[in-house]
Amino acid sequence: MDVCRYIKIHERDNVAIAIQDIAAGTRIEDGLTANQDIPQAHKIALCDIPQNGEVIRYGVVLGYAKDDIRKGDWINEHMLLLPESPSVENMEYGTNIVPIDKLPVPPRTTWMGYRNAQGPAGTKNLLGIVTTVQCAAGVLKAAVERIKKELLPKYEYVDGVVAVTHPYGCGVAINAPMAHIPIRAVANLIRHPNFGGEMMVVGLGCEKLTYDRVLQEEDITPENVLTLQDYPGHDAMMQAILDMAEKKLQKLNQRRREELPLSELLIGMQCGGSDAFSGISANPSAGYAADMLVRGGATVMFSEVTEVRDGVPMLAARCVDAHTRDRLAEEMRWYDNYLAEGGVDRDANPTPGNKKGGLANIVEKAMGSIAKSGTSPIVEVLSPAQKPSKHGLIFAATPASDIVCGPSQLASGIGLQVFMTGRGTPYGLEISPVIKVCSRNEMKDHWFDMIDISAGDAACGKKTIADVGTEIFHMILDTASGLKKPYSDQYGFHNDMCIFNPAPIT
Amino acid sequence: MDVCRYIKIHERDNVAIAIQDIAAGTRIEDGLTANQDIPQAHKIALCDIPQNGEVIRYGVVLGYAKDDIRKGDWINEHMLLLPESPSVENMEYGTNIVPIDKLPVPPRTTWMGYRNAQGPAGTKNLLGIVTTVQCAAGVLKAAVERIKKELLPKYEYVDGVVAVTHPYGCGVAINAPMAHIPIRAVANLIRHPNFGGEMMVVGLGCEKLTYDRVLQEEDITPENVLTLQDYPGHDAMMQAILDMAEKKLQKLNQRRREELPLSELLIGMQCGGSDAFSGISANPSAGYAADMLVRGGATVMFSEVTEVRDGVPMLAARCVDAHTRDRLAEEMRWYDNYLAEGGVDRDANPTPGNKKGGLANIVEKAMGSIAKSGTSPIVEVLSPAQKPSKHGLIFAATPASDIVCGPSQLASGIGLQVFMTGRGTPYGLEISPVIKVCSRNEMKDHWFDMIDISAGDAACGKKTIADVGTEIFHMILDTASGLKKPYSDQYGFHNDMCIFNPAPIT
Repeated sequence: MDVCRYIKIHERDNVAIAIQDIAAGTRIEDGLTANQDIPQAHKIALCDIPQNGEVIRYGVVLGYAKDDIRKGDWINEHMLLLPESPSVENMEYGTNIVPIDKLPVPPRTTWMGYRNAQGPAGTKNLLGIVTTVQCAAGVLKAAVERIKKELLPKYEYVDGVVAVTHPYGCGVAINAPMAHIPIRAVANLIRHPNFGGEMMVVGLGCEKLTYDRVLQEEDITPENVLTLQDYPGHDAMMQAILDMAEKKLQKLNQRRREELPLSELLIGMQCGGSDAFSGISANPSAGYAADMLVRGGATVMFSEVTEVRDGVPMLAARCVDAHTRDRLAEEMRWYDNYLAEGGVDRDANPTPGNKKGGLANIVEKAMGSIAKSGTSPIVEVLSPAQKPSKHGLIFAATPASDIVCGPSQLASGIGLQVFMTGRGTPYGLEISPVIKVCSRNEMKDHWFDMIDISAGDAACGKKTIADVGTEIFHMILDTASGLKKPYSDQYGFHNDMCIFNPAPIT
Repeated sequence: MDVCRYIKIHERDNVAIAIQDIAAGTRIEDGLTANQDIPQAHKIALCDIPQNGEVIRYGVVLGYAKDDIRKGDWINEHMLLLPESPSVENMEYGTNIVPIDKLPVPPRTTWMGYRNAQGPAGTKNLLGIVTTVQCAAGVLKAAVERIKKELLPKYEYVDGVVAVTHPYGCGVAINAPMAHIPIRAVANLIRHPNFGGEMMVVGLGCEKLTYDRVLQEEDITPENVLTLQDYPGHDAMMQAILDMAEKKLQKLNQRRREELPLSELLIGMQCGGSDAFSGISANPSAGYAADMLVRGGATVMFSEVTEVRDGVPMLAARCVDAHTRDRLAEEMRWYDNYLAEGGVDRDANPTPGNKKGGLANIVEKAMGSIAKSGTSPIVEVLSPAQKPSKHGLIFAATPASDIVCGPSQLASGIGLQVFMTGRGTPYGLEISPVIKVCSRNEMKDHWFDMIDISAGDAACGKKTIADVGTEIFHMILDTASGLKKPYSDQYGFHNDMCIFNPAPIT
């Protein structure tokens, strides 16, 4: 009997996860034999489950059996009926608050960052040039190529120049009820901690997203904003951008890293391309690192509404007060409604890759996804692209889409993102480094030079969650301090800034 | 008396447009004196208009006077009440059909393009590599940089390599009622006429937008699709992309331009950053060129739903049959509903720049916008990103947003876009050339090396609409034939592929 053939997570569970592919007929343990081939990461029934019976993993009902399931059967996504979303009304709060002094102790309590006048410190020293409108994107991208070649080499203490272009700014309903979401994203990106307070904004001149919508009045100055329509032709326009950039580079070049407490660090957690191991290895390990960071005073953000929706009462139980619980409920209601208006529901979330990776439905995906938040109390709930006002663990209610969650968390000010993956993705962000953690060693073997850390050893007891979590913790601090560079930054694999716009295009 | 101080378009009009700034007190003609400073392109009242009276331009009611307006008053956007949208029910069709032989005769009837096995010919010979998902965008962009440097120089007959990345593909509700719109866009972009039938599609491997959603079964081959998750690490992945690209480049390098009839040309018309001159000079001149092209057998597409919505009965009158009229009504209803669900209406369209340029509201903007369609009969109405099945003038019901309309028209297969602007925009597309036409000579003087053609002389009688239209016609054919390069291509000013996704993000 090989005790390491499957993983059962909670004592109530009546299904377990195959650690490797299991061939039909394999005797797994006394009285348990695989009735069919069971792919790695997929579920096997530990007992007979009658039609309409509960299928339980993580101690939670994933769904109800469409037909009778026999002990030893492979359980795939076609065999379960999805349960109702849990209600967000009258959720209990504060019933599962882990005291800060019970969280794991961080092995280090300082890091080397770029201190800002206010808010979290920077993990990089970048010149960030933000467009108010996509119309200006072509010019800005061409200008940034020139800045990188002609100016940046003169400023050795500046890490890079980023053209922050996005699809928003005009051709949109700027006064629509939901327009504040993308507008807030642009406004907050201008002030990203990695840009050191040196705002540089490029507009066209006739767009709907006027400067006053994204900047304070005192910041709308010739030093900070540049309007393309003001310049007579190509050469003048390019020169103006280069001149403004050079002044900003001179200031940024004065900045140095300094030793800072963890309270000046703000990071984000995300997962993408998940499989059934994500909830066993990568996400709990990241959650352990999150707990260490929170104990040390840092701020950790997790997100992805549709991937926590089915576990929201568990999150409410971790909310520190009624207000935080109410904000959580409010964001869930908003998203439920947003999806319903588009004619879908939360089960539109799982991907073919998730299902191939053994995740039967959104409930199972959610249980794994929540694990990356660790066990700390939730001190604040944010709307998409909002900035936190507290330290500790924060839920930022962004879409679960990797490429939309990333820019949203950047707008919220993260200096680094930890990204857990089961299937593998080359995802990266230009503004803040992204550390990729995979759930299985096979993934790390396959993408040996694209995945930064494997949590695979935690799946089968070779390492503990604490071991891998501590490894992730060190990688976070080393990367935030500029000592390590994740693969996505080494290759320049950076995704576009797909900011969330739930309002109409006109 | 200077007869060239203002332009009155239709005999019914009770307002006219100032050709230059007019100072308060200026005597414009016998009995007409400016009561206030009137900015260039803004409206002046030609007679007293009582409260609730009609304000008429283009022979159309732009709106109703909020208060009494005196003869000689400046009429700005705050002085008009918006009329109701015209109904799309039971619109008359076929009542304004200009016979093809009454359209202006094109001075040339052939051009030099890249013939395709089916559909319109190419205006460029490009390797287009399309992602199925944004997750793959970082890798693809890095790979395309290498292809341009390491491979492209060996293939002298290939004009370029384009990474077609977009925000779609995963983290979206792939089965939402509206998901077919972005899916169709990706599917049709893969087969863009400028890619010569050499499909190259890069996916990640776990995304929702699977190959079968965007490719025919027989096209899903190792020659055409590449899945990043199949490759062991960075180097293997990059090499695989380069190898596949090289095979495609070898085939594309065999292609040559040949003399083709106008029936193999498909172009799009768009305007952006409009002012009150757009409807007098640039758009009617482009419309004249469109009429010549249609007479010569070409296909011309115009778009921008919210910018034609108020003139839709005028378009219905030009529809060749009841089916085309019904399709027009259907697309208008869909968009009315889409905007209403987002809590806005069509008047969310005009921008601060439009208003500064003298456009009081969406009715006035629409009347100018429609002018770019010329006078030909409308033979077909398309949903966003659909491909035309007919030759002649076609309405493609895309958003009016420049940066969304562009990719939609590209998906519909345009080989070139003519872009009219009043305020000026550096807008450009990488796949197909964009010719920029401005409405005023001041704009051309200001952006002398960014605007390709000024229609300004048509505003004040120095040239006729036919003169400028013929100039645009020649520029279209020269550019489509590769003889001229518009400024946006000279500088590489290219906008992102912001494809239209009205379905929710998950």
